[in-house]
Amino acid sequence: MTSLKERLLTDLYNCGSYPGVNAEVLASRLSEMAQIGGLPNRGVSRYVYTEEEKEAKELFKSWLEDIGGLVWEDSVGNMIARFEGENPEMPVVMTGSHLDTVPEGGAFDGALGCISSLMAVEALRNSEKKHIRPIEIVVFADEEGTRFGSGLLGSRAMIGEVSKEELHQVKDNKGITIYEAMEDMGFMPAKVEESKYPENSIHAFIELHIEQGKQLEYNQEKIGIVNGIAGPSWQTVTFYGETDHAGNTPMNLRKDTVAAAGELITEIEKVPTAVSDSAVATVGKVHVLPNGSNVISGQTELTIDIRDIKEEARNEVIARVKNTAEAIAENRELEMEWKTLLTLPPVPLSKNIQRITEEAAQRHGLAYRLLPSGAGHDAMNIGKKVSAGMIFVPSKAGKSHSPEEFTNLSDCLGGIAVLKDTIEYLANE
Amino acid sequence: MTSLKERLLTDLYNCGSYPGVNAEVLASRLSEMAQIGGLPNRGVSRYVYTEEEKEAKELFKSWLEDIGGLVWEDSVGNMIARFEGENPEMPVVMTGSHLDTVPEGGAFDGALGCISSLMAVEALRNSEKKHIRPIEIVVFADEEGTRFGSGLLGSRAMIGEVSKEELHQVKDNKGITIYEAMEDMGFMPAKVEESKYPENSIHAFIELHIEQGKQLEYNQEKIGIVNGIAGPSWQTVTFYGETDHAGNTPMNLRKDTVAAAGELITEIEKVPTAVSDSAVATVGKVHVLPNGSNVISGQTELTIDIRDIKEEARNEVIARVKNTAEAIAENRELEMEWKTLLTLPPVPLSKNIQRITEEAAQRHGLAYRLLPSGAGHDAMNIGKKVSAGMIFVPSKAGKSHSPEEFTNLSDCLGGIAVLKDTIEYLANE
Repeated sequence: MTSLKERLLTDLYNCGSYPGVNAEVLASRLSEMAQIGGLPNRGVSRYVYTEEEKEAKELFKSWLEDIGGLVWEDSVGNMIARFEGENPEMPVVMTGSHLDTVPEGGAFDGALGCISSLMAVEALRNSEKKHIRPIEIVVFADEEGTRFGSGLLGSRAMIGEVSKEELHQVKDNKGITIYEAMEDMGFMPAKVEESKYPENSIHAFIELHIEQGKQLEYNQEKIGIVNGIAGPSWQTVTFYGETDHAGNTPMNLRKDTVAAAGELITEIEKVPTAVSDSAVATVGKVHVLPNGSNVISGQTELTIDIRDIKEEARNEVIARVKNTAEAIAENRELEMEWKTLLTLPPVPLSKNIQRITEEAAQRHGLAYRLLPSGAGHDAMNIGKKVSAGMIFVPSKAGKSHSPEEFTNLSDCLGGIAVLKDTIEYLANE
Repeated sequence: MTSLKERLLTDLYNCGSYPGVNAEVLASRLSEMAQIGGLPNRGVSRYVYTEEEKEAKELFKSWLEDIGGLVWEDSVGNMIARFEGENPEMPVVMTGSHLDTVPEGGAFDGALGCISSLMAVEALRNSEKKHIRPIEIVVFADEEGTRFGSGLLGSRAMIGEVSKEELHQVKDNKGITIYEAMEDMGFMPAKVEESKYPENSIHAFIELHIEQGKQLEYNQEKIGIVNGIAGPSWQTVTFYGETDHAGNTPMNLRKDTVAAAGELITEIEKVPTAVSDSAVATVGKVHVLPNGSNVISGQTELTIDIRDIKEEARNEVIARVKNTAEAIAENRELEMEWKTLLTLPPVPLSKNIQRITEEAAQRHGLAYRLLPSGAGHDAMNIGKKVSAGMIFVPSKAGKSHSPEEFTNLSDCLGGIAVLKDTIEYLANE
């Protein structure tokens, strides 16, 4: 099997020239990182607070120190490298991503963001340009939430939203609490509040990430400028009807919950586009009881994921879907139950950073588009407190959280160039 | 908990008067039978070739002998009781049902048919009426097919459709073959071909059964005259699309197989009524992959059960559903796979017997309707060779294969009266 480095380098001759950013070094670093927790199927499994993640962070630390970073880890395991600016007193420009993965994830989600921040800062430091503000590269702990079902933990701790109690309560599937897992890795969960950055100590945050979608590829664009992070809302609707014999019950005497669910699925698909150009709604999970070939089902549950970067529009989609479900239940004389499992508010990203990033993309001649992020990111948390921005690079076929995850080397490189310019601008504001 | 007998007897004062058929004896017999394999939840579990089924057959045998039957069991365990007619050379009139149940089944499915045949023949024998033809009451072996996934085995053996090879091949979940199970109970599977009735040795077959549906109850009718047994056809349709992130994939870039399935379910519901007044189509089983809240599903499989007593109409429903599925797949640019799991031809029942039964219902002043049987019955097999008929009595709330299965005593009694008249007529044809 060809290595990730070899696969990346097939695109070497398409790479643009960006001073201080070396395409071959980028390919080597991505490839070397992907070997830690690497699987035979090209996937990567690196869970938070494990030996694999520790090894990945140690490798990344060595690279950070090579370019002059002062590196430390905070009480929950966020790794931070500081590069002093001309005025060390000013609030910092922060950039970075994460090194943990989902099970059998890919080599780019998180890792590309960390390495991009490293190489952008490296290029800036090696140039003749100065930066007035200090810059910090961060590797957030527990972005994916795979092991503990938590997610975005490091960035939440950084804005002071994680309590000791929570760390004691949440357990992995072996019954180990996050608190214990942190202690096992040498962190200090008892001092979780020390992970919090003081108010006004961060000037701006910028993260590069793979798109995890296919809009850029579909539109042949290279840079996604993220205008907001859609707040996911998960709802379940359960229809209760009557379990009957599929052969002996005429069509007009049925209380068939699969039929009701089919009708609702068909309606749900039409709602988002009618409400907002950035809204989406997805029925990803269907649970039918008794789920027998010859049985009219007496109970069917759908899980509906509804997102938009505009909170009002998102809530309008939810309301319309709920009304539709109620009307279907009423027409069919079924009982219906509606439950909200999760609702996070959308987080708008900084218009100033979007403008800076847009100018950088134009300067480098890279086609770009403004787009929402449907997935959650640490920028959601940091963005609650300070100006935050995100740069997306194309995901091949939109694949992510999968061994098939891939981004062409030229696209990675273009993203780093835009990231570098953005950091440089912000660090001299 | 009140016993079945007590529950049945609450309806005693609604029972019509039918000479020779005693309501209290009926209640006692149903109740006594239900105790064999009876469960604390009022359910009954009596699987074929087990001690429970043996005990039930022994009890039933004692009742058969009490009313003068000559009882034997054939090579596969069908129990037969012969009541000689004035002309013993003539082909017999056969009536009966089964004593095995599904897991946690009810007290009426099968047992009511056996006891009704017993009481109808008892009433006939105790009356001054004669019967020229011999009458045989049969308890079919393995009607439900619960233990071996077979079903209707005894009646298939009776028409010569079961081979020794099949008995060696089919196993229960402990690895015991039907052949071994039959030998363990003292039957002679090596002589399975001896179970076959010679051509022209049966004149007609008539079975009373609970409706297992709710048409009679809904229409406040007491007798269902079955005009045919719908041949079930099971199809699966699988849509293959693309697994994508529910947040990061705009509505217009999706290949969402749940959405396709929803559209198909909605269309399927409309097809049967457009084609035939007796056709039904049911999506009872839905299998979504990966079935995650925030994932657009790349694969969804539906199992579709389609039935009609008219084979041409049944096949037309199948064709329309398949065309619709193909059109949906094409519109949505999905791959689609269509598989036929099972197709049994519908079995029309004897118009002559329907007429005889109808006249009997009219004579007793019992409201009736002609209706198809969506469920399979032993009459499907016997009906391939000789005139066959079925009489349905109402199922409370349409429940069957459930501890909730119930039929009012008055309704059971009316059914027996109609069955008795039908047997008497057929036995003197």
